[in-house]
Amino acid sequence: MQGTPPHSPAYPPTERTVPTRSPDRAAYDREQVHAILDEGYVCHLGFVRDGAPVVLPTLYGRVGERLYVHGSTGSRPLRAAGLAHPGLPVCLTVTHVDGLVLARSAFHHSINYRSVVVHGVAYDVTDAEEKRRALDALVDHVVPGRAADSRPANRKELAATAVIRLDLNEVSAKLRTGGANDEPEDLDLPHWAGVVPLRKGYDAPLADPGLAPGTALPGYLAAL
Amino acid sequence: MQGTPPHSPAYPPTERTVPTRSPDRAAYDREQVHAILDEGYVCHLGFVRDGAPVVLPTLYGRVGERLYVHGSTGSRPLRAAGLAHPGLPVCLTVTHVDGLVLARSAFHHSINYRSVVVHGVAYDVTDAEEKRRALDALVDHVVPGRAADSRPANRKELAATAVIRLDLNEVSAKLRTGGANDEPEDLDLPHWAGVVPLRKGYDAPLADPGLAPGTALPGYLAAL
Repeated sequence: MQGTPPHSPAYPPTERTVPTRSPDRAAYDREQVHAILDEGYVCHLGFVRDGAPVVLPTLYGRVGERLYVHGSTGSRPLRAAGLAHPGLPVCLTVTHVDGLVLARSAFHHSINYRSVVVHGVAYDVTDAEEKRRALDALVDHVVPGRAADSRPANRKELAATAVIRLDLNEVSAKLRTGGANDEPEDLDLPHWAGVVPLRKGYDAPLADPGLAPGTALPGYLAAL
Repeated sequence: MQGTPPHSPAYPPTERTVPTRSPDRAAYDREQVHAILDEGYVCHLGFVRDGAPVVLPTLYGRVGERLYVHGSTGSRPLRAAGLAHPGLPVCLTVTHVDGLVLARSAFHHSINYRSVVVHGVAYDVTDAEEKRRALDALVDHVVPGRAADSRPANRKELAATAVIRLDLNEVSAKLRTGGANDEPEDLDLPHWAGVVPLRKGYDAPLADPGLAPGTALPGYLAAL
């Protein structure tokens, strides 16, 4: 039996990653999943505390097939990940809203979106080298190339920062694209229908008033 | 004993809504919470299935102190809400990313954001009138004023749509604003620091190619 090689082009679907609704919107392609993950700034990390769900927004970074989330060593989810054995069951979700879909019927209103849902168990990162790489990935996730242009974490900061790792094994993307899907009998109704795309981009960077003299806007920000 | 009146200006903090970290970033003001909720398109709904957390992006709407989420009667979370008694424990989170915060030190990189976390129990909406109002709220949440300018759900569509309700009782907002918080000893480092604001807005609406003749772009879209 061969099994799935670690870098097959797609994540193998599981019971949890095959949607009960609109299965045509699900995708398992690694490149597509990575692209959706890399475009986000914040993930929504879900875990169970005292039997109830908790969903918190948090920064993340990706190194190959591993996601990293960091936080204070005093924060609840990270404390739970470090204490729980053998790790903390989590669900990590990243979503981009691309457009508002207005149909002639109220029922068919929707949004265009791309999301990734990762199921798994998060582990506390204890290896110092892996922790450093993870923190670089977290900074580079905010602005690519930024980790190399900032003062690296010192020993005290490293000790105050907990990092948890979630491997990309049980993963799916879900996407909606295109226009309104109205019923044929509604097409002659006088209501406007179509898509309002959401604009993505950046406004001009606001420099800290106390920048050291001669500090120019770096190229990786001008390129945004 | 008087207790908290239902429309006091703030949600009473609970053990779950007081953060262990950065408590200065937490807010409980109803108006502020409503504004953050109303600006979002997608919430991240967390629930527990077979002991593991699940976090799914989904549309939502607000009517006063109630949030509504809808979906197919065949979808997992809604089926769970309908079947479970006395309801489905959920955590519903809405997050806006407002800016990237670049500090001189890697450690102080952050983002500016506004989020709302709602803890509670979701109940299946069975009252026909409440269900209709909830569905209007869901459509108006995508584009205010739109519910009145679309064909209302018919009996078949209403039957195929499940709506769950989550009351706003245990609620908190969390916000980060402002610039980089560098250590005093880092201020002379030659790294650029500041904030890159994320641009919010819309691109020009894309009309469905099959609009009925004479259908103009409605004012509520032109105003976007």
